[in-house]
Amino acid sequence: MVKDNVIDAFGTSEIRDYDKLLREFGVQDFTKLKVPDPLPTMNRGIVFGHRDLKPVLKAMKDGKKFAVMSGIKPSNYLHIGSKMVVDEIVYFQDHGAIVHYAIADLEALVDNGLSLDKSRAIARDNLLDLVALGINLKKAHVYLQSEELRVQRLAYVYSRNVTNNMLKAIYGEHPVGIYMAALTQVADILLPQVIHGPIPTVVPVGFDQDPHIRLTRDIAKKHGLLPPASTYHKFMCSLLGVERKMSKREPQGMIMLNEDPKKARKKIMKYAFSGGRDTLEEHRKKGGRLDIDVAYQYLTYFEEDDKKLASIAKDYQSGKLLSGELKNILADKIEEFLVAHQNKREKAKKLVDNFLG
Amino acid sequence: MVKDNVIDAFGTSEIRDYDKLLREFGVQDFTKLKVPDPLPTMNRGIVFGHRDLKPVLKAMKDGKKFAVMSGIKPSNYLHIGSKMVVDEIVYFQDHGAIVHYAIADLEALVDNGLSLDKSRAIARDNLLDLVALGINLKKAHVYLQSEELRVQRLAYVYSRNVTNNMLKAIYGEHPVGIYMAALTQVADILLPQVIHGPIPTVVPVGFDQDPHIRLTRDIAKKHGLLPPASTYHKFMCSLLGVERKMSKREPQGMIMLNEDPKKARKKIMKYAFSGGRDTLEEHRKKGGRLDIDVAYQYLTYFEEDDKKLASIAKDYQSGKLLSGELKNILADKIEEFLVAHQNKREKAKKLVDNFLG
Repeated sequence: MVKDNVIDAFGTSEIRDYDKLLREFGVQDFTKLKVPDPLPTMNRGIVFGHRDLKPVLKAMKDGKKFAVMSGIKPSNYLHIGSKMVVDEIVYFQDHGAIVHYAIADLEALVDNGLSLDKSRAIARDNLLDLVALGINLKKAHVYLQSEELRVQRLAYVYSRNVTNNMLKAIYGEHPVGIYMAALTQVADILLPQVIHGPIPTVVPVGFDQDPHIRLTRDIAKKHGLLPPASTYHKFMCSLLGVERKMSKREPQGMIMLNEDPKKARKKIMKYAFSGGRDTLEEHRKKGGRLDIDVAYQYLTYFEEDDKKLASIAKDYQSGKLLSGELKNILADKIEEFLVAHQNKREKAKKLVDNFLG
Repeated sequence: MVKDNVIDAFGTSEIRDYDKLLREFGVQDFTKLKVPDPLPTMNRGIVFGHRDLKPVLKAMKDGKKFAVMSGIKPSNYLHIGSKMVVDEIVYFQDHGAIVHYAIADLEALVDNGLSLDKSRAIARDNLLDLVALGINLKKAHVYLQSEELRVQRLAYVYSRNVTNNMLKAIYGEHPVGIYMAALTQVADILLPQVIHGPIPTVVPVGFDQDPHIRLTRDIAKKHGLLPPASTYHKFMCSLLGVERKMSKREPQGMIMLNEDPKKARKKIMKYAFSGGRDTLEEHRKKGGRLDIDVAYQYLTYFEEDDKKLASIAKDYQSGKLLSGELKNILADKIEEFLVAHQNKREKAKKLVDNFLG
């Protein structure tokens, strides 16, 4: 939530006005970058912003060392919207990055009161998704914060670089544990450089995480490290409407990565907010509205083929394609994805269980 | 320092009015307790106060499990005044306590900006003193905070039990790292119970550490643990005067445990503030003043034989014993102690180096 021009990194993010973010928070326009082999989300303005990504792209191009770092708070299972960040990590991984991934169980503890044991159980499920989506668990440094002594130590080190007023200005007023979780996250982001020396590092995140990025960039300089780069993506909306965020309180609007594919199909058919017209006659005449049609919006994330997507858009806008038909295209896509994804999850179980020990 | 009735646990303590502490901070009178085989410091009002020690004494008497816990910030070498706490720990150790000892390198980091490496070097010297003074390094749980994952985790857990206002009320206004160090110290104190279940625990400390004790007692109850007990001792004054604290800024007033015994003797003879009179004649007539004579005050810590001490006091007050003679008695005592202590330090080196790995 943006309140008094402070982005609440620990609240529920409701950011929609991405242009404002570009204007007012000094975020650069991602669509103006030349990125090799871009993901569909990178081409379509879904990954909309970045800070300082050029040194990362240069290292990538020159075959130099660089890192990609991200993480998750293991208080929830992953939904189809969470896939985006993981896809970006895998993208940089496949282009040569050292991969770090933090499972923020200490943050889940102070922010949500989740015990480390409960976090661990959810983390197991999260890890199945990460591996299924392509993260190389054997090569990447994936860790639980509570088990990574270095980030805990570094949080104490970096606490010397902040004042209470700085923390209040960046995050708003919070209990000390939350501030410590923020410093732990700074440590997560800088750990690749602490281990490998100063190297360009990119952190793909939702824009609600930008306060962490700004704080980390500030602290990095004080320790002879490179300010980490970031990329920002638009959040995937709830099935219930483009202005709504996926939320545990409205499970009918959310599709989880561990969800039964048949049930996911039914949810889409039943709940996906439609941009279609009230009557068949009106729809044929005026065509559907892409901007508010959730099924179409989801396809911009899931239909990788640009030509197919363009033809769907054209047919829907012209009224040739009906709402139910559009939902059906998405339902096929998601069902197919979930079946394949869950097969991969099944195969990842042994690896993940060994990993967690 | 007591300022607006807040004891500054992170400042330089200048507490002298111990009676006021007993009256105003709810500390109980140690001298009213029946303690088996008391140390001289326990008999002489040097250990002057406690919180809730009775359950510890009962466990001791009944042969039940109990713990003694203390620690040090490895920013300084130990001086002869630091011996007191260690003697108390050894006392409880020898009466059956489980011993925990925290080397607070994370606190040294946030409070003094000392790197973990530098802390480690000083900690090695501190450990030599601990072993030489009788702590059983093989049986006790002695650890560096930065290497004890459990206390770091617990600090996050306990952060949920405090508000910023509570921390301000207890400690005064400090940066977040200092508050986190305080919560880490709470974790240090409760670790014996986290490991062994709820057991009486005593924490021998200087009174400046009482804020930590009060905070810990409060948090313990919220986690089904017993509020830890504490004992408080009077600080040993500087050689330069009974109202002065030993300080690195006045090294001539301090005797370190790793100091050359001959040099220590010279310091005492040269700098120990005397309660003797201006002329020999006046001294013989009026006698020396015990209350301001540092050599005598030091003997209350170092001369274990009550009768000998009483006879020295009598002779000094009557004018029979001269200042120089009194200093000489102390100098003999301290030199003899340091020679023996440093022999033990020498023998402890291998053990300590193995311990630090």
